[in-house]
Amino acid sequence: MTALLGIDYGGTHTKLLLAGADGDPAATRRRTVPSASAAGLDGLAREVEAFLGGSSVAAFGVTVPGTLDVESGVVGHSANLPWLDGLAPATLLGERIGAPGVAVQDGVAAAIAEARSGAGRGHDDIFVVALGTGIAGAHVVRGEVRRGAHGGAGEVGHTDVGGDLPCSCGQRGCLETLIGGAQLGRRWRERLGSEGGDAASAVDVVRAARGGDAAAIAVLDDATSALARALLTISALIDPALFVIGGGLARSPEWTVDPAVAKARSGATFHRLPDVVPAGLGVWAGAQGAALSAADLVLTG
Amino acid sequence: MTALLGIDYGGTHTKLLLAGADGDPAATRRRTVPSASAAGLDGLAREVEAFLGGSSVAAFGVTVPGTLDVESGVVGHSANLPWLDGLAPATLLGERIGAPGVAVQDGVAAAIAEARSGAGRGHDDIFVVALGTGIAGAHVVRGEVRRGAHGGAGEVGHTDVGGDLPCSCGQRGCLETLIGGAQLGRRWRERLGSEGGDAASAVDVVRAARGGDAAAIAVLDDATSALARALLTISALIDPALFVIGGGLARSPEWTVDPAVAKARSGATFHRLPDVVPAGLGVWAGAQGAALSAADLVLTG
Ligand SMILES: [Zn+2]
Ligand SMILES: [Zn+2]
Repeated sequence: MTALLGIDYGGTHTKLLLAGADGDPAATRRRTVPSASAAGLDGLAREVEAFLGGSSVAAFGVTVPGTLDVESGVVGHSANLPWLDGLAPATLLGERIGAPGVAVQDGVAAAIAEARSGAGRGHDDIFVVALGTGIAGAHVVRGEVRRGAHGGAGEVGHTDVGGDLPCSCGQRGCLETLIGGAQLGRRWRERLGSEGGDAASAVDVVRAARGGDAAAIAVLDDATSALARALLTISALIDPALFVIGGGLARSPEWTVDPAVAKARSGATFHRLPDVVPAGLGVWAGAQGAALSAADLVLTG
Repeated sequence: MTALLGIDYGGTHTKLLLAGADGDPAATRRRTVPSASAAGLDGLAREVEAFLGGSSVAAFGVTVPGTLDVESGVVGHSANLPWLDGLAPATLLGERIGAPGVAVQDGVAAAIAEARSGAGRGHDDIFVVALGTGIAGAHVVRGEVRRGAHGGAGEVGHTDVGGDLPCSCGQRGCLETLIGGAQLGRRWRERLGSEGGDAASAVDVVRAARGGDAAAIAVLDDATSALARALLTISALIDPALFVIGGGLARSPEWTVDPAVAKARSGATFHRLPDVVPAGLGVWAGAQGAALSAADLVLTG
């Protein structure tokens, strides 16, 4: 058996993907299960067993929504799956699945998948930005993520774009404070003067902007200016050959990615701002990246 | 003969260095000649011939203070040595010297030297910052500079640190507008309300700060805050294992590097801000890096 299993272990849902060794999408089977029902790794292992139905896999990868020590595979902190803190999910699941496994940060897995099988296919040097509740980034060169000396590289969401808003990371002025999905909704409500109301999502803000809401348009204008500054900073420091932008907000590009790229192009001076393309794999990127990481495990022994 | 020649072709002075193949400093000979007397590559070739005194070299490297196409070795634009624009100095000098040569951007050469033989020796993953008239940067991994997809990486001087001052690159708010030597002097004069006077240098600003001049202290405070922000952005995006900081301003660390590092450490949240060490090679780093690049040429054929 050379089938590879990718597990995208998310805060609300977990995606399971079974792929051939070559990552051929035609050979994949997929299932989404609620993470809540799999609270704890024991529950997840039962879901995986049901999904596999007795067939074996050569290796598996499992994404972690949180910090991870790459050497040991031990989770540092996961805000969304707190029961993972201090555990090595690939080791524990491996005992149940009966195959070697590897844990991968969720953003890293999605970036690997986009680079090797998605929008970055055929390009050697890609910077992937994921515009979600938070903002993730990864520089992928020849299919490998550059993690940096302490595994901390690619944190574009927490680069300073010159604002003064407090960020979840403790800094002020991070990109994430202006375009992170959670913050977008909050900023829009504040501008409307309705702080006490229900939380608004990024989707709500985009919908309001489409309907001509001036506050939503202004909030998105700040957000795309901030993203433009971040793209220019990445070009100046790293100079990638391609930007791949995905995540929930990228699904309304006319309000998010397109104006940001236009602003970055008009602001570029010496920069060699490369092409910017949308991510190609959608919500299955994480599971596919986990399966590709499993393939690496088989190849490297 | 395995001697290697390093030529640091600067705007005012040119440094010539002859090294053994292993880069042994004990085997080096050095001479500084005014670049003015060597206007044009023909003049430089005569200076090199006089320096070598008839002995031959296995290869040479020559730094270029300007943009360079790495593949062809052709200079794009050099503000300080304008007669180089459009020429391939290593090819032209090679005909006179009778050895293969390679052209290297001056900042890249200095960073290679610091990484391999200077303050970065023994470290695999270094970000070098040079605080000069302009601000140069280079990410050096295992002795090789990461140039990016279009040769444009490492431009820390032109990352946005949130100011609004116009930069020579056409952007606003670049790091270089706040800590570049030329701009420091100008900002100090403006604060003193003496725009019409003689140009002040960064050395003048530091000297005034030492003497208790409030305007100089304030200008340097802005400068070190900006450098702190840039160090945090590099840590967030690239996560190097070591910062090496050199250049003229770094020679007064108590007014420049030390406060910047203290501010970066106190501002760090998730960042893995690494050690920050002073550059070790001084003004000969460029020539030494040119000689090391010549060594690469011999090794790779
Ligand atoms: Zn942040
Ligand atoms: Zn600039």
